[in-house]
Amino acid sequence: MREAFDAVDVIIAKRDRRELSDDQIRWVIDAYTRGVVAEEQMSALNMAVLLNGMTRREISTWTDAMIKSGERMDFSSLRNPTADKHSTGGVGDKITLPLAPLVAVFGVAVPQLSGRGLGHTGGTLDKLESIPGWRAALSTEEMLAQLDDVGAVICAAGTGLAPADKKLYALRDVTGTVEAIPLIASSIMSKKIAEGTGALVLDVKVGSGAFMKNLDDARELARTMVDLGTDAGVKTVAVLTEMNIPLGLTAGNAIEVRESVEVLSGGGPADVVELTVKLAEEMLAAAGKGGQDVRAALNDGRALDAWKAMIRAQGGDPDAAMPIARENEQILAERDGYLSTLDAYAVGVAAWRLGAGRARKEDPVQAGAGIELHAKPGDQVRKGQPIMTLLTDDADRFARAKEALAGGVEIADAAPEPAPLVIDRIA
Amino acid sequence: MREAFDAVDVIIAKRDRRELSDDQIRWVIDAYTRGVVAEEQMSALNMAVLLNGMTRREISTWTDAMIKSGERMDFSSLRNPTADKHSTGGVGDKITLPLAPLVAVFGVAVPQLSGRGLGHTGGTLDKLESIPGWRAALSTEEMLAQLDDVGAVICAAGTGLAPADKKLYALRDVTGTVEAIPLIASSIMSKKIAEGTGALVLDVKVGSGAFMKNLDDARELARTMVDLGTDAGVKTVAVLTEMNIPLGLTAGNAIEVRESVEVLSGGGPADVVELTVKLAEEMLAAAGKGGQDVRAALNDGRALDAWKAMIRAQGGDPDAAMPIARENEQILAERDGYLSTLDAYAVGVAAWRLGAGRARKEDPVQAGAGIELHAKPGDQVRKGQPIMTLLTDDADRFARAKEALAGGVEIADAAPEPAPLVIDRIA
Repeated sequence: MREAFDAVDVIIAKRDRRELSDDQIRWVIDAYTRGVVAEEQMSALNMAVLLNGMTRREISTWTDAMIKSGERMDFSSLRNPTADKHSTGGVGDKITLPLAPLVAVFGVAVPQLSGRGLGHTGGTLDKLESIPGWRAALSTEEMLAQLDDVGAVICAAGTGLAPADKKLYALRDVTGTVEAIPLIASSIMSKKIAEGTGALVLDVKVGSGAFMKNLDDARELARTMVDLGTDAGVKTVAVLTEMNIPLGLTAGNAIEVRESVEVLSGGGPADVVELTVKLAEEMLAAAGKGGQDVRAALNDGRALDAWKAMIRAQGGDPDAAMPIARENEQILAERDGYLSTLDAYAVGVAAWRLGAGRARKEDPVQAGAGIELHAKPGDQVRKGQPIMTLLTDDADRFARAKEALAGGVEIADAAPEPAPLVIDRIA
Repeated sequence: MREAFDAVDVIIAKRDRRELSDDQIRWVIDAYTRGVVAEEQMSALNMAVLLNGMTRREISTWTDAMIKSGERMDFSSLRNPTADKHSTGGVGDKITLPLAPLVAVFGVAVPQLSGRGLGHTGGTLDKLESIPGWRAALSTEEMLAQLDDVGAVICAAGTGLAPADKKLYALRDVTGTVEAIPLIASSIMSKKIAEGTGALVLDVKVGSGAFMKNLDDARELARTMVDLGTDAGVKTVAVLTEMNIPLGLTAGNAIEVRESVEVLSGGGPADVVELTVKLAEEMLAAAGKGGQDVRAALNDGRALDAWKAMIRAQGGDPDAAMPIARENEQILAERDGYLSTLDAYAVGVAAWRLGAGRARKEDPVQAGAGIELHAKPGDQVRKGQPIMTLLTDDADRFARAKEALAGGVEIADAAPEPAPLVIDRIA
């Protein structure tokens, strides 16, 4: 077969800051999926994209080409409209767990295709798998049935959606090209658009524990993704949220499920409740069902009922005892004062090293591992008081976890200025 | 074995415009040669180097690491000092052929390790292989003996010199990263330094038929290579020379040998003679034997004798009849006037398509194919007069060769301003 383009010409065009044509982009994604464009060629192109950027049209075509590399799902047969949420990833970010059943309470179906954790941010599926019996893999038919019956599903994405993205993501991971905003945006949005949701709320996290360390980059990523969703006919909104400190008081798997259930029962940490409510309001509004009293459903048990139905539908026992780590060790305040720093990245890496996350994608995770926080920045602490508890099944993991925390926990004479959780909204 | 660095960290450092440490560079070249750094990782690093550059120290360490990836030759046992020449490649550039024996006449040994042609510039070995019986492959012992006996050798580089460069060049060729000045400079200089020459003259060509299309890039490349040679203890000089029009009146294989013999016999085109003499003077001066009457050796037969001895030493018959192309076709002047444009790139591509060059490195070349020029820019021409003769063994190659010439040959009412052949000298 004679190819329409030559890979080297396409690489050189982007290297020399020229705009790629739609035909070039469609060819390069398709030829890469077919193995005609080699890994080393795509890698050079990715680096050129990272350093020289892409225009809105190029990113849009790139995303569409990745969607067309695989299947698309179709939710048009459902009785309710659909809304999905995507977070760019943070530490202690369990929001999907209370959010999906909460939104379902109001007659909006939530088809939440999720992933496992890699690196210092946890994975939603890893968290739910700490519930005895719960399974992540559903067929499309099971998923559609559950969306009509229960209204919410959190499950593993099938392998048929955007296969070009899967191949490309694995390549970017080993070639230093993960941090390219056009590639991040098209990776996320190709999967979400192929999934077929009607509305999408993006939680773009900013700070030490997030992918995006500074606000300008986060804003550019959010704007790019909102444009991509809008161009593809998906009602898309992004919120920029703070990720310099962990969300809530837990970072791990079973302990994050426990905290989510607290929120679904009308309790839980204020920041987790605030963000859950904010994102639920955005999802309902985007799906055309705005203006409802979301908080009431957390307080009156409706959200908890939806949660239990969702867990049961996937084989889980929502009332079963959760796994507990075999070993624990407390970190104590070294002086009197106010907790001034609790670095999200340090806590994320420590929880990961305790066994809550994985270094390679084939590694198992420990259901009980993680970190429980007993104080958050601004809280007054006394010398010797426990600030956090480290949890793991292997006591020899404590040392490296504590290394990760070095410099990430500080006590000062005065309380720090509180930072708002929701920084901005882009629609 | 535990590796000293992680490839992704090194890629990210260069991607983010940080300077790589000597240890990082030595590791990445060594690990790439060992296959631990994957092709797609080196490709991303190459693109980052192309777009973000390297400092003089980084290029120097990079070059040294490539030298250390293989063997080094040693000419210290020879009775005469050594001097070598490298051209960055042009159309009709047969200068090595008369130059090597000419320099040898004056008691400087010339160990000229050469390559085959790829693309629109010819290869020195391809040209010499049109001489019946001549062979390019010599052992190191044969090479040393010939340098002492005859004083000049033009042969194929062994596979032991800078193997990292061989692997890297093949990768750059398919990933759009050939044109990075730090990578070009280190590729050329690693081989020349490993070869062990005492002095080196670089002919850096500028213009449509050259690698470097503009003077600033050529100057930067020349300066970078002179610095690398100097840092490695090789007496190095670069001349920048014009390559918008072909050198001499021939572009091909056997026909370039014939033109070289004309120069060695005291005749030949003025530009070929001028550049041969200039580079010979530079090589002799760099080897500590400057101030000699080089032109005399072309006119009195000494250079021709050295040529014949050099060809015979490698099995060739310098007096044998040379191969002649089976087919020829003339290009005629379309009007009266002065030849104003004779684009080197167009002529190079046309000669290549006629069979003088190869598209893939495993392709054969035609000894007789190429282009003979009957006029050069500035010459007055009359309508219907032959401007050039196309030569090939396959008549069906004429059409695509003429396509390549379209727009590359122009006749105007006035003669163009003559351009100097030697533009600058960098030492």
